[in-house]
Amino acid sequence: MPDTIALPPYAPTPRSRVRRHPERAHYDRATVHAILDAALMCHIGYAIDGKPYVTPTLFWREGERLYWHGSSASRMLRQQAEGIPVCLTVSHIDGLILARCAFRHSLNYRAVMAFGTAAIVTDPAEKEAGFNAFIERIYPGRTGIMRRIAPPELKATTLMGMTIEEASAKIRSGGPLDLEEDHAADCWAGTLPIAMRVGAPLPDEKVAPRGTLAAEAGHFAEGAALDQVLLTLAGEERRYG
Amino acid sequence: MPDTIALPPYAPTPRSRVRRHPERAHYDRATVHAILDAALMCHIGYAIDGKPYVTPTLFWREGERLYWHGSSASRMLRQQAEGIPVCLTVSHIDGLILARCAFRHSLNYRAVMAFGTAAIVTDPAEKEAGFNAFIERIYPGRTGIMRRIAPPELKATTLMGMTIEEASAKIRSGGPLDLEEDHAADCWAGTLPIAMRVGAPLPDEKVAPRGTLAAEAGHFAEGAALDQVLLTLAGEERRYG
Repeated sequence: MPDTIALPPYAPTPRSRVRRHPERAHYDRATVHAILDAALMCHIGYAIDGKPYVTPTLFWREGERLYWHGSSASRMLRQQAEGIPVCLTVSHIDGLILARCAFRHSLNYRAVMAFGTAAIVTDPAEKEAGFNAFIERIYPGRTGIMRRIAPPELKATTLMGMTIEEASAKIRSGGPLDLEEDHAADCWAGTLPIAMRVGAPLPDEKVAPRGTLAAEAGHFAEGAALDQVLLTLAGEERRYG
Repeated sequence: MPDTIALPPYAPTPRSRVRRHPERAHYDRATVHAILDAALMCHIGYAIDGKPYVTPTLFWREGERLYWHGSSASRMLRQQAEGIPVCLTVSHIDGLILARCAFRHSLNYRAVMAFGTAAIVTDPAEKEAGFNAFIERIYPGRTGIMRRIAPPELKATTLMGMTIEEASAKIRSGGPLDLEEDHAADCWAGTLPIAMRVGAPLPDEKVAPRGTLAAEAGHFAEGAALDQVLLTLAGEERRYG
């Protein structure tokens, strides 16, 4: 993955500047990238005739480029073929905050809003490389033990790409922020951490799998936190708090 | 919560109809509501000057109404004060699908796209009732052991509401859908389940909490799946697959 973390921070713009709780804002690339790379799924916002749509989809990052894919038939992608403005948002829930008054209950989270112009990647070689890079990013070595993507499969799927033009991250971490006058309230206060975790593997029942899960995808160990696995695969660390 | 499940299904419209993988689409209210109610966070899409924005935020449902809140200062809410079109999207990641060729790797998920016109709830009594209902929805009984929301707190937060005008759900469940010709591929194939789970509670360090977590929020037991806890609180069951 090209190292673009050394670039200057994203400049806050009228579009990307965090207005609510600006103390939670981050504009440096390392923080923005670490939030993106800890996620499999993003929510892509686009407008058709001024009306908003938000589509959840798998995505991945290469340097300052974000990629996602879908069927060539999808409305979103047909619209985006011409290159349309997109807001790609990623969020992680990290914890429930139980405070000592209703108003100060909150959520620990990490989120990124990335703005750019999305367009279809038309070159078949770039498409194939992109899909394989996505598989390799999650399951290193896996494309080497499977057949290549067939031309009809490549044709049936559209690869979308956008360069990050503007971006901001927003992070809440730590415990409740109660008013001193509420400290004597007769209730439990603190954080209930939340994480997406891997469960017990379910082998395909239709045909007994060959191979070995531990060797092929042992990094997704039962109980592991998905965001941590993805960050480790990307050679990054979770940064916040 | 008003029972609106008995109403007819949401009618698929050009805006809400699922085009990609229509076999994964659901339009009945019970399925749509169960996906919404299993989530704490949604992604709200709106357009300003035709440009899309997607903001992650906490939300809750009452019948056919969806509510979310934020600071009165937020750009999104100022824009939405006049009542603007919104797409509110919720997604759950349920599993990674390891298939026998790159193209058929997938994700198990549940998602809802709900469309409506969002507007600010201006009546203070309705606002206070709304915020308390949200706390009670997650932590039943909790508003009774804490002081009331103070007027300045109420003023500092905006409550947004929208009635669901159109909605659709999309669900992928089950294992890999490999081609028969790939069944002999020498790799593990199956599902790695993913769920958001509650971790070990972290009591507030600034002031020792009073009260008892088990009595106040014991339903968020360590290891519990967040979506299941929320569905149980809503008196619903997870439906899919």
